Amino acid sequence: MKPTVGSTKIGLLGLGLMGRPMGINLIKAGYSLTVWNRTSSRAGELVAAGATLAKSPQEVAASSDFLLTIVSDPPALEEILWGPSGAMQALQRGSTYIDSSTISPALARKIAAASAERGVRFLDAPVTGGDWGAKKGELIFMVGGDADTLKDVEPLLGVLGKKWFHLGPHGAGQTVKLAMNLILALQVEALAEALALVARAGLQGEKLVEVLQSSMARSGVLDVKAPNLLKGEYVPSFPLRLMHKDLGLALDLANQLGVALPATAAARETYSYVKGIAKEDLDYSAVMRFWKR
Amino acid sequence: MKPTVGSTKIGLLGLGLMGRPMGINLIKAGYSLTVWNRTSSRAGELVAAGATLAKSPQEVAASSDFLLTIVSDPPALEEILWGPSGAMQALQRGSTYIDSSTISPALARKIAAASAERGVRFLDAPVTGGDWGAKKGELIFMVGGDADTLKDVEPLLGVLGKKWFHLGPHGAGQTVKLAMNLILALQVEALAEALALVARAGLQGEKLVEVLQSSMARSGVLDVKAPNLLKGEYVPSFPLRLMHKDLGLALDLANQLGVALPATAAARETYSYVKGIAKEDLDYSAVMRFWKR
Amino acid sequence: MKPTVGSTKIGLLGLGLMGRPMGINLIKAGYSLTVWNRTSSRAGELVAAGATLAKSPQEVAASSDFLLTIVSDPPALEEILWGPSGAMQALQRGSTYIDSSTISPALARKIAAASAERGVRFLDAPVTGGDWGAKKGELIFMVGGDADTLKDVEPLLGVLGKKWFHLGPHGAGQTVKLAMNLILALQVEALAEALALVARAGLQGEKLVEVLQSSMARSGVLDVKAPNLLKGEYVPSFPLRLMHKDLGLALDLANQLGVALPATAAARETYSYVKGIAKEDLDYSAVMRFWKR
Amino acid sequence: MKPTVGSTKIGLLGLGLMGRPMGINLIKAGYSLTVWNRTSSRAGELVAAGATLAKSPQEVAASSDFLLTIVSDPPALEEILWGPSGAMQALQRGSTYIDSSTISPALARKIAAASAERGVRFLDAPVTGGDWGAKKGELIFMVGGDADTLKDVEPLLGVLGKKWFHLGPHGAGQTVKLAMNLILALQVEALAEALALVARAGLQGEKLVEVLQSSMARSGVLDVKAPNLLKGEYVPSFPLRLMHKDLGLALDLANQLGVALPATAAARETYSYVKGIAKEDLDYSAVMRFWKR
Repeated sequence: MKPTVGSTKIGLLGLGLMGRPMGINLIKAGYSLTVWNRTSSRAGELVAAGATLAKSPQEVAASSDFLLTIVSDPPALEEILWGPSGAMQALQRGSTYIDSSTISPALARKIAAASAERGVRFLDAPVTGGDWGAKKGELIFMVGGDADTLKDVEPLLGVLGKKWFHLGPHGAGQTVKLAMNLILALQVEALAEALALVARAGLQGEKLVEVLQSSMARSGVLDVKAPNLLKGEYVPSFPLRLMHKDLGLALDLANQLGVALPATAAARETYSYVKGIAKEDLDYSAVMRFWKR
Repeated sequence: MKPTVGSTKIGLLGLGLMGRPMGINLIKAGYSLTVWNRTSSRAGELVAAGATLAKSPQEVAASSDFLLTIVSDPPALEEILWGPSGAMQALQRGSTYIDSSTISPALARKIAAASAERGVRFLDAPVTGGDWGAKKGELIFMVGGDADTLKDVEPLLGVLGKKWFHLGPHGAGQTVKLAMNLILALQVEALAEALALVARAGLQGEKLVEVLQSSMARSGVLDVKAPNLLKGEYVPSFPLRLMHKDLGLALDLANQLGVALPATAAARETYSYVKGIAKEDLDYSAVMRFWKR
Repeated sequence: MKPTVGSTKIGLLGLGLMGRPMGINLIKAGYSLTVWNRTSSRAGELVAAGATLAKSPQEVAASSDFLLTIVSDPPALEEILWGPSGAMQALQRGSTYIDSSTISPALARKIAAASAERGVRFLDAPVTGGDWGAKKGELIFMVGGDADTLKDVEPLLGVLGKKWFHLGPHGAGQTVKLAMNLILALQVEALAEALALVARAGLQGEKLVEVLQSSMARSGVLDVKAPNLLKGEYVPSFPLRLMHKDLGLALDLANQLGVALPATAAARETYSYVKGIAKEDLDYSAVMRFWKR
Repeated sequence: MKPTVGSTKIGLLGLGLMGRPMGINLIKAGYSLTVWNRTSSRAGELVAAGATLAKSPQEVAASSDFLLTIVSDPPALEEILWGPSGAMQALQRGSTYIDSSTISPALARKIAAASAERGVRFLDAPVTGGDWGAKKGELIFMVGGDADTLKDVEPLLGVLGKKWFHLGPHGAGQTVKLAMNLILALQVEALAEALALVARAGLQGEKLVEVLQSSMARSGVLDVKAPNLLKGEYVPSFPLRLMHKDLGLALDLANQLGVALPATAAARETYSYVKGIAKEDLDYSAVMRFWKR
């Protein structure tokens, strides 16, 4: 079944930094939306825009042709799927379920199997683009699962994002997302290590950044995160606790596969160190606090 | 003294991948050039273009208003400066000496002090841009030393490069260069770790690269090095043995200053591993061989 | 309730390298023993010695005053406790449950809570001493939980081991066990790195080991594992896949707590590398294969 | 030439924590001793005991049948050998020179070559046993060089130590010493990481140490250093700055040879971190301050 504006019922579980703007875009596009969030106060804006607030993940699933979930980590997702009043038991035969959380490929495959048993089509489709991309409807989806299912949900993805990549069978979307995030984490780590070195040597970090901008070391991370590191301001765009979690998922996957990731492992420990000393929620660029508190 | 086309005599020590095209550009710009290289056969192209081949670093220094050196590592530089028939003893009072090798900031300061004793002005001015940048005259210079000296040599730098940054006192150019190279080494390491993970999970590296290009993980390194990693072809643009050396210099500096660089240290060991198993000269992107021989 | 030889019924789940000799010792001491194992063929020796073979973990729990479990990892334990015909649902009010597997402190606490709900006393009591210690009845127990419960089970522990340490509340036994194993893994890693260095320098590893024996670098690991590393023979005493799993558990715990463990993280990747290339089951000292295949 | 009590003249350069008690033992054994130290005030005790204080390394070498050096690092040794009034130029043909500093194998080979040119026999003979071993005359020597030379100097070594190992050609003593010290550094690091983990989990480090003492994780390091780590008292027995230097030498050697040492590299960065924050001279067990200031 393909989504049709006006008649298609969409369910959305998870109304965080990403889920809220995604929901708004779906409503704006004319879809009928039912939502639920563990902290129901977060549904305010969406309800005001026309969404229906359900009492449980189960209730959302029971009334949806398409279910979309985007929560912070694997335990949160397992809870809304298989916990009390969980969604899985209520997913409708013939419906489609898309998860855009970042979780392990193994959990994605487990969800795919449970969905298949109920006659539900599943895609793992984690996103990149940040809250800004979610607002603008310019997310990138990394998709694992059946190509035909992806074909059918493209109208929905087109409301939420600007690009989607079919990467392989179930779990492939998550695998690529974890690979991407280890690169981002290491790029920020590299920049932080370089800035720490230059600062201790008595030079200005601003100068280093200026030179880097002219060189092959230029990068998206340099553009977006260098200002944070130089100012020591870490308002969360992508929270450190989530990047730390994703590094853990990447290392878990690598260790299951027997692939050594020495630099990722080293970087994870510096993120862990900062997570341990941080009092408040910080952007992952706050890994700089390992050197400069 | 400022360089003047036609009358100014320039000496060039080090005719490797970088030194040769730099020399050609100086000749094309009209400067009188005297050269020397440990392996004199490398001087052929330059002599054919009009350069004078001297018998020793000493002879080059004795006849130069401006001396430029660009060799592969600190021991090579120490040898041409202070070894038998070394250049330092012959540097002319009032002349200017620019070193574009990548060495330790400490050695740069030692050279600055020795130069000052002889009435010679010194700049540490390592470069980035690769052999391609050297040929096009589009190098970037990272300069440590006196601002007035830099001002005076700008006409020369303008022949060789497109930009120069005054970064601080002697050694500052080298410090920033080492910081840049640790970033490049970690970016390639990150890409290699991500590709190793994705490949072992049964997915195609090409797909990961395609997604990265659309994301914040895009970078100069991704553009230039991803094709090498995907094809497993590592024709040296910047040789692994030199990147490995630069990581060593960066870690030496950090350890002297008491700055921990966990990810750089981890990455250095993978470069070391590949250096240990490589039979031929490879680009530093061959760090991928840690995973895929 | 305290165990009494002759009348007390003991259940044992997990008949691996450790569980089998532990069961034999319980029978020899005069206890009535019911056992179960996923691979039932492993029960042969115990049944021959007088143990009753049950059809499921549930059946074992239903007939036991004391339940003992010792399996290879957290998923295996969760399966025998909460899977189909799992033990937890059948544990008798007033009975005592001791788990000697190495698992996460969080899972130990979860089991403790589930046990308490059923009126069952629980101890996490992982062991050290290897299969040799299990045979000789000379294991060391690291115990988390209630001190009175420990007091009551001392007669049983005395049959299986020579020492037990009460380390704190539920989970404390596991925390200390993980801390111990990261030390063992790093000691073997250190020895392997040192031997790799010495060998590549053209010297004999035997000489290094001889010197170490005379120095402060002497250790239990040196006595027991150095011969393996020198000969390149890695018959499993403690399998690499289990040490690798324990390093993962230790790092998971540390990352949850925000404690950076840089060397443990680095070592885990070398164990992972060897796990990835190993074709057969090897002792954890086979981490040496990272350098010498 | 063999040393003879009464007539043999011994020169000693380096009167630190190790050199002073070694000198005292030589005097007590009846040897004629000439000494020099950069800080001449350190010679007081030795002069009082009968040693002659010379004005330079050169003067010591000129008057010695046997020269012994033990200084803190390679630059210090290069200075006393080849600096102004250095010892090398004055070493007597037919004399023997033993260096007990910890330096790079390459420098040991360079000294051996320079000595051979002057008709001087050289041994690299770094020691282990600490200042306590130096006082008791119970050092262990790790010797590289000619076996016959070692045979001849055994009477001297017997005054200073209890054991010596002939490990191979020049540099072999240093190679084995560096391998030993990386093991010691990693053992302390492992203990510190384990204690940090246990402490953050709310348990007592003392309990962990007690359990370790009963297990295969027992070690010389546990006996000697665990009390420091538990109390947070780090009176230097072997200073952190020297262990940090030795880790650097070990990694330099490994990187020259292309041997990856991932855990050593990770540990070195934590030592570096503590070196960077330490205000005073601390024992290397103070690496614990990475976690607990």
